Amino acid sequence: MPNTFEAKSSNNQLHDINEALGSGQIEHAKEMLHQLQPGDLALLLESSRSRNRLDIWQLIPPDLYSDVLEELSDDVRNGIIRKMLPDKVADALEEMDTDNLVDTLRGLPQEVAQDLLAAMDEQDRSRAELGLSYGDETAGFIMNTDAITLRPGINVDVILRYLRLKGGMPEHTDTLYVVDRNDKLMGGVALTSLITAAPDTPIESLIKDSEAIPATMMDNEVASLFERYNWLSAPVVDEKNQLLGRITIDDVVDIIREDAEHSMMSMAGLDDEEDTFAPVVKSTQRRSIWLGVNLLTALMAAAVSDLFEAALSQLAVLAILNTIVPSMGGVAGNQTLTLVIRGMALGHVNSANARWLISKELAIGFLNGVIWSVLIASVIAIWKQDIMLGAVIAFAMMINMVAAGLAGASLPIIMKKLKIDPALAGSVILTTITDVVGIFAFLGSATWLLM
Amino acid sequence: MPNTFEAKSSNNQLHDINEALGSGQIEHAKEMLHQLQPGDLALLLESSRSRNRLDIWQLIPPDLYSDVLEELSDDVRNGIIRKMLPDKVADALEEMDTDNLVDTLRGLPQEVAQDLLAAMDEQDRSRAELGLSYGDETAGFIMNTDAITLRPGINVDVILRYLRLKGGMPEHTDTLYVVDRNDKLMGGVALTSLITAAPDTPIESLIKDSEAIPATMMDNEVASLFERYNWLSAPVVDEKNQLLGRITIDDVVDIIREDAEHSMMSMAGLDDEEDTFAPVVKSTQRRSIWLGVNLLTALMAAAVSDLFEAALSQLAVLAILNTIVPSMGGVAGNQTLTLVIRGMALGHVNSANARWLISKELAIGFLNGVIWSVLIASVIAIWKQDIMLGAVIAFAMMINMVAAGLAGASLPIIMKKLKIDPALAGSVILTTITDVVGIFAFLGSATWLLM
Repeated sequence: MPNTFEAKSSNNQLHDINEALGSGQIEHAKEMLHQLQPGDLALLLESSRSRNRLDIWQLIPPDLYSDVLEELSDDVRNGIIRKMLPDKVADALEEMDTDNLVDTLRGLPQEVAQDLLAAMDEQDRSRAELGLSYGDETAGFIMNTDAITLRPGINVDVILRYLRLKGGMPEHTDTLYVVDRNDKLMGGVALTSLITAAPDTPIESLIKDSEAIPATMMDNEVASLFERYNWLSAPVVDEKNQLLGRITIDDVVDIIREDAEHSMMSMAGLDDEEDTFAPVVKSTQRRSIWLGVNLLTALMAAAVSDLFEAALSQLAVLAILNTIVPSMGGVAGNQTLTLVIRGMALGHVNSANARWLISKELAIGFLNGVIWSVLIASVIAIWKQDIMLGAVIAFAMMINMVAAGLAGASLPIIMKKLKIDPALAGSVILTTITDVVGIFAFLGSATWLLM
Repeated sequence: MPNTFEAKSSNNQLHDINEALGSGQIEHAKEMLHQLQPGDLALLLESSRSRNRLDIWQLIPPDLYSDVLEELSDDVRNGIIRKMLPDKVADALEEMDTDNLVDTLRGLPQEVAQDLLAAMDEQDRSRAELGLSYGDETAGFIMNTDAITLRPGINVDVILRYLRLKGGMPEHTDTLYVVDRNDKLMGGVALTSLITAAPDTPIESLIKDSEAIPATMMDNEVASLFERYNWLSAPVVDEKNQLLGRITIDDVVDIIREDAEHSMMSMAGLDDEEDTFAPVVKSTQRRSIWLGVNLLTALMAAAVSDLFEAALSQLAVLAILNTIVPSMGGVAGNQTLTLVIRGMALGHVNSANARWLISKELAIGFLNGVIWSVLIASVIAIWKQDIMLGAVIAFAMMINMVAAGLAGASLPIIMKKLKIDPALAGSVILTTITDVVGIFAFLGSATWLLM
């Protein structure tokens, strides 16, 4: 009898295991570990401090190694593999699905990967080498080579007898593929139609013209096809339309998760694979590039203010208010930038509507400018009892809001044309623009009108 | 013969259709539209300006209405439904899967939804009312009621004959469910094991103890279970363990995409459902809350600077450098905040490791403080020929980096305990903290040491 699943209790399990490990009750921890599934074990490893991961790994039953390694993120998996004995690694790899095997091998130092390949049997080596021959993040790289294939000219009864003889199917099989004598893909037969068809139905009448994915297609395109057409799996072919393998939805889920996270992490200046529990020095190193770039842009903004030293030394109030306009421009620009980056990721933004989108965001920038100019001018006129100062800050706000809308919408579109990742560099360039424009507009108009 | 699928050509198609519509070649556009699948039509509608959507909708064959509506995002779908004739809406709704039907009804004004429910036939109304009885974002809300159920005591041959008689299966069926005479779930039988088993195998020996999801479980917990255990579908039960329906991976993919986007969009102060092509005024309204909050925090930072007016009016250089320390603190703090929010979303951060994580981020803040203090002190000492000024800014940088690490790690953990969404308000509170601490530390120590 199944019990309803309580996510709470699963978290408590992990908590209890951590407690047991922390207090040295190794046998008790081991007992609890042996009741967990590979997905739970992977979660436990990923939620642990990097130095504790190896202790936990020692307690996991070796026959689960390959399943657990498949579920781990790259960083954590590579950390563990580097500390395992080579023959244990080879054993674990041979049991892996092709996509995870290939992904793991590519994450290892080249000599190690070569040694492991050499130690594999013929069949495993050749499926690994096929995957490795395709670039990172392509369909060929993420496919599995375990598709069940059929030949034309048989009927449902023959297929069913063949499958019973085989006695099992690869995980997540929902479609069998029909290939001709040259291995060229003729189409797919869904398990559901196989089951509901009469035994004497010829295979030809069940074939669906399933659309095949070229092995060189980028994985994010594959993911958007799966999302758009609600596929569970799809065949992968080479340029001659020969069947190479299949991609299943569980791998696509990982790609979707990673792609969506990539934008969020990049916009904050983080590496996607950044492990929350990595050691302090490693984390500091990984984050320093972005802080370095930001220091440069902050110094650039300071240099712009420096041009107006005369005004700043005469009117301290300008120094006090100097951050308001750049800050509002930064927020408005980042809203636009984020929306356009998401729109591009979903495939909504294209050459046909890019110009319209930019003019829409310009109009929003203008409207924002009107609203927040009036508001800030009123606040400053009352706070500092100076209507002229209010007018100056309103003028600067107006200019900067329009600049923010224009930059936020056009930057990602331009960067994509230049093949630069807009999520990675867009935010820092945008903030530099809104800082420089904001300071120039505010201090410049103050010098002109108030001095 | 299938052709390899080119995502490029699909985008071109959409482009061509937009062109044809723009230049008034309605018949040509209609012809092209008729060749598209529901997923393509949904993408076309979502990539179009809101005012053009209804024109495109008129050209879509009515028998595809329900499939296309199922694929649309809430905002776009509701916009279209509100302009459709009520009887057309009712027709389209009756053909929908339960989960989409329920989702659509909940998005409509209550009177409209009531009228539509009243117009439905008995069976459709009762499945809709079951879903509507569960809260938004629960398993009961996103489930489908189309699971195939079997009774115990039969063998594979009987099941296969029954399925052939039925002649088809609901989309994405990979498991049949066995229930007792009180509809209590006994377990699942995978299609793959049904196919590979001998005809005389009793059903009991094929039953897997599939874990059931309680109808009240939150959808993001459901999604993480699917990810962790690589499920394609899962049964949903009520508190008495009676089978209510099933959840399929295609709906889970949408939840994963939305959850990941939610964090990214909220951190930029945007509504997840914000439609890239909404009218200008509506978009401006939706974004104004965040800009208003930011104006308050910018004024608060200005008020802090105002406390040091004496120092600022004597040393204009303080005004010029005043933004550097807050800016670096903001970036460092946002890196930590983003990482912790992601860690919480993936289930990696829990009460067992929260304290350790905060101390790790404090250590990174300290290390960052050392690195960037030394660097900024050197730059300022050379640029402004003032070693004491360099020491002041270095001290302020040190303080602010530690504050950023502490705030970035503890804010989301505290907010989650208070049941506030950290992605939504975390970033603005963090920036306020790093601004205020940075300005206080810089101008305060300058007043103390340089005046």
